[in-house]
Amino acid sequence: MRLFSYTSGGNAHVGVITGDDSFIALDEAAPDLPHSLRGILEKKDGMARVRDAVAGKTGGRSLRDVEFLPVIVDPQVTWALALNFKTHIEETGLTTSREFPHLFMRQPSSIVGHRRPLLAPPTDVAKEFSYEGELAVIIGKGGRHVPLEKAFEHIAGFTVCNEGSIRDYQRHNRNFGLGKNFEQSGSTGPWMMTTEEFGDPQAQRVITRLNGIERQNAPLSDMLFPVERLIQYLSSGYNLRPGDVIMMGTPGALPPHPGENLTPSGRHKILGQVNMKPGDRVEVEITGLGVLANNIVADEPATYRPG
Amino acid sequence: MRLFSYTSGGNAHVGVITGDDSFIALDEAAPDLPHSLRGILEKKDGMARVRDAVAGKTGGRSLRDVEFLPVIVDPQVTWALALNFKTHIEETGLTTSREFPHLFMRQPSSIVGHRRPLLAPPTDVAKEFSYEGELAVIIGKGGRHVPLEKAFEHIAGFTVCNEGSIRDYQRHNRNFGLGKNFEQSGSTGPWMMTTEEFGDPQAQRVITRLNGIERQNAPLSDMLFPVERLIQYLSSGYNLRPGDVIMMGTPGALPPHPGENLTPSGRHKILGQVNMKPGDRVEVEITGLGVLANNIVADEPATYRPG
Repeated sequence: MRLFSYTSGGNAHVGVITGDDSFIALDEAAPDLPHSLRGILEKKDGMARVRDAVAGKTGGRSLRDVEFLPVIVDPQVTWALALNFKTHIEETGLTTSREFPHLFMRQPSSIVGHRRPLLAPPTDVAKEFSYEGELAVIIGKGGRHVPLEKAFEHIAGFTVCNEGSIRDYQRHNRNFGLGKNFEQSGSTGPWMMTTEEFGDPQAQRVITRLNGIERQNAPLSDMLFPVERLIQYLSSGYNLRPGDVIMMGTPGALPPHPGENLTPSGRHKILGQVNMKPGDRVEVEITGLGVLANNIVADEPATYRPG
Repeated sequence: MRLFSYTSGGNAHVGVITGDDSFIALDEAAPDLPHSLRGILEKKDGMARVRDAVAGKTGGRSLRDVEFLPVIVDPQVTWALALNFKTHIEETGLTTSREFPHLFMRQPSSIVGHRRPLLAPPTDVAKEFSYEGELAVIIGKGGRHVPLEKAFEHIAGFTVCNEGSIRDYQRHNRNFGLGKNFEQSGSTGPWMMTTEEFGDPQAQRVITRLNGIERQNAPLSDMLFPVERLIQYLSSGYNLRPGDVIMMGTPGALPPHPGENLTPSGRHKILGQVNMKPGDRVEVEITGLGVLANNIVADEPATYRPG
């Protein structure tokens, strides 16, 4: 099953996808359910009631004009992993623990939905706006001190993520801080695919295309810390909550394509990494799950805006 | 004016302090106002209406049995600063940029209110639970690209903070991640004192006592990055929002008191730094503002708890 969050008439809603271009609006099919995916996940029988409500039905609505929201609009926490792919560790030359995951957080307004614009900062603020194609985990059932073998029972599903990063700011100091939290700099979507439909994440790949050209393409089995280990680690200090998002880290860059003349980019002079700029279109695909697409738009100039 | 958040009958409320032990319940004095401090700050005339509602009144309620909540229960973001006091930089031997603040984030369930227990992790999970006495800023008016000279116009007030940290986890990797985000590991409170009543933060001191013994005592003028610079920096990438919290960083440890025989503590072997353990009582004071007190209680054992 695939569920997504969208906005219509200023309100948030949840839809269930029934075909290539069709969905069922849950506030019509199951008006008693909460109108947010987090709210549904927080109810013990929430997902079962969704299944009952859509069983045997065909969606009458088209996805074409839907305004997607981030898959989870209001997570208690969005956790994210740094340096979780060997190829990304190698290309940056950075060190990271092989024993403990490298975690940071993203604040909600840094994340938009499928098809919404990502904002490139004005060039007098920052110049290096990077895509990061990633798998993201959505927690379904809360828990603490979750053992590895129980980890999957706590996952509701998976989504695609572009963990867009402002590299100039990221290297201001040791913690990434603001560099991972610019307004509308990343995205999740289009939908959450439930665990039993997605199957084993390690069997899939993450692929990132900028203006149609592949820039990342790696098996998820390359992850240093797999999903189960993340859930075990996080839950040793944090009570997992329904709707929590965990972004699983990004792989290294593909080498330039034949005939391409790319300049090595950023502090780490990575060949094949290309910054995003206004007018670009970025797509992240998780095979077997879906494609998350966003256009890059210039943010407003850096002038004082009280508000 | 001093405002605080408290819980009663399972609901959150806001109170205004009128004396050593008295307060006015805002849902009685101004029932039309939102019942959260963030909600009040989000209204353009929110604070003016609070002033009108309490003008000339004496509070009929006692603070004695109040169950304090964190000053802001539901901030969009809680930002926190690492290594913002020269004495703390020196004692850790860590490097930090002198140009850009060192920022990370805390998630809401890591923060409790005044008088609520802080949870010491089971010793098989972590052993080093540290206090960090700090000043915290509460944003009143949103804004982007705020110049230094306008920064104070965006502050609603200040509160006291214990940015409690699990050092074992903090050093698992370069970003602090989970080490700054254990459940109920830090606190804010007791109240927010409005900017015009608190005056210049640089004129005040931060003092931390563990079981009545002073362990930190430093002038806030020692901050590497003052409040104005933080607001300027953050707003270059993030839209400040009413109710946002910024924790301003902690000073170094006081040397041991005469006759004390302390073992240097933690990775950095800091003499005078003492870990918190169940049964302890920790107090953080910002002079001119108030004292935030919490008892330390053992968290539950590290056994699997789904749900």
